[in-house]
Amino acid sequence: VPPFAQGLVRDLRVRWALEEAGLDYEERLIGPEDQGAACYRALQPFGQVPAFQEDGLFLFESGAIVFHIAERTEILTPRNSEGRARMLAWMFAALNTIEPPIQNLAELDLFPGDEEVKAKRRPELVEGVKKRLAELSGELEGCEYLVENRFSAADLMMTAVLRILRHTDLVAQTPNLEAYRLRCEARPAFQKALADQMAPFAENAPDGA
Amino acid sequence: VPPFAQGLVRDLRVRWALEEAGLDYEERLIGPEDQGAACYRALQPFGQVPAFQEDGLFLFESGAIVFHIAERTEILTPRNSEGRARMLAWMFAALNTIEPPIQNLAELDLFPGDEEVKAKRRPELVEGVKKRLAELSGELEGCEYLVENRFSAADLMMTAVLRILRHTDLVAQTPNLEAYRLRCEARPAFQKALADQMAPFAENAPDGA
Repeated sequence: VPPFAQGLVRDLRVRWALEEAGLDYEERLIGPEDQGAACYRALQPFGQVPAFQEDGLFLFESGAIVFHIAERTEILTPRNSEGRARMLAWMFAALNTIEPPIQNLAELDLFPGDEEVKAKRRPELVEGVKKRLAELSGELEGCEYLVENRFSAADLMMTAVLRILRHTDLVAQTPNLEAYRLRCEARPAFQKALADQMAPFAENAPDGA
Repeated sequence: VPPFAQGLVRDLRVRWALEEAGLDYEERLIGPEDQGAACYRALQPFGQVPAFQEDGLFLFESGAIVFHIAERTEILTPRNSEGRARMLAWMFAALNTIEPPIQNLAELDLFPGDEEVKAKRRPELVEGVKKRLAELSGELEGCEYLVENRFSAADLMMTAVLRILRHTDLVAQTPNLEAYRLRCEARPAFQKALADQMAPFAENAPDGA
């Protein structure tokens, strides 16, 4: 994993949820050779991370895994069915409305490509991201969290998505969004999850890297 | 809604689920002026469609609404909790792994833009879509449906996403995916949902359009 992606890999979301829920778990790291291997594809049809196994249940997609974990604990899920349904709505919003424009901008900025094409595309991508951030900021006005004004898996997922913009100051330009991100990232479960994702990168870094 | 998007608007997914579940519902169409209005934003924070109201519950995001409806009926949801969790995983896969590259290609092809930039970008976008379609095709090898080989909300969502490629022959190039799409679209509930989405476009079309 290149340095620009360390701390953003999507297993962070699952680690964070497991830490919030206080569940025991074991991690198994994979290498590039696993991503194409049939035995890993049986767990994760697209060769991505994360994949999740619990007894006979095999899950993939960070949204589905986090929702599965969240349902176990009131720390991550409102107690009533309306709150739970709205939590899932905000999880889908994070992953299907907010993440796609953010991911497009991050890929343009962080991956190699035709510099002329990048320069032409970037202003429109930035505007698209700003529009979504402004809408999200409006939603959070006067609130600390997205659902019932209490931390839930919706905030976990939204924070993980906002972090993809860390190479820019787009979140910092919106004070209540920046405060929201910092509030969520200050949780001990997030700090533990982030440290656990980062540790193997440091251990396996080439000398001098 | 321009003709290229008619039959693809995301309320189709919700109509389809409601028809499969056999639930009574009323539709309320909105216009461009509603999308920015505070009273609509209270239902749908991003001004998009669909939004869903049921007694005191307000939901948005097609993924969350379809899951909420699907939980009511065994027609759309496997009976056991493992099957239900895997159904949600495939719904997230449809919306977070498959749809983003498909949506990027559709926007490049169907929206105006710099033709030189488009020509430079298109081959890579097509390759990205083909990769995901090949992985999905592999998953469906020997199966008619994604979860427990029975129709579920996962297939509903995946079919709705594959339809975004209808201006290309990318799905048709993969025979088992094309057969899958046609199998799901042949369901009476889909046909009813599609006809219901299309009817107001015909009624409100400008003369001669």
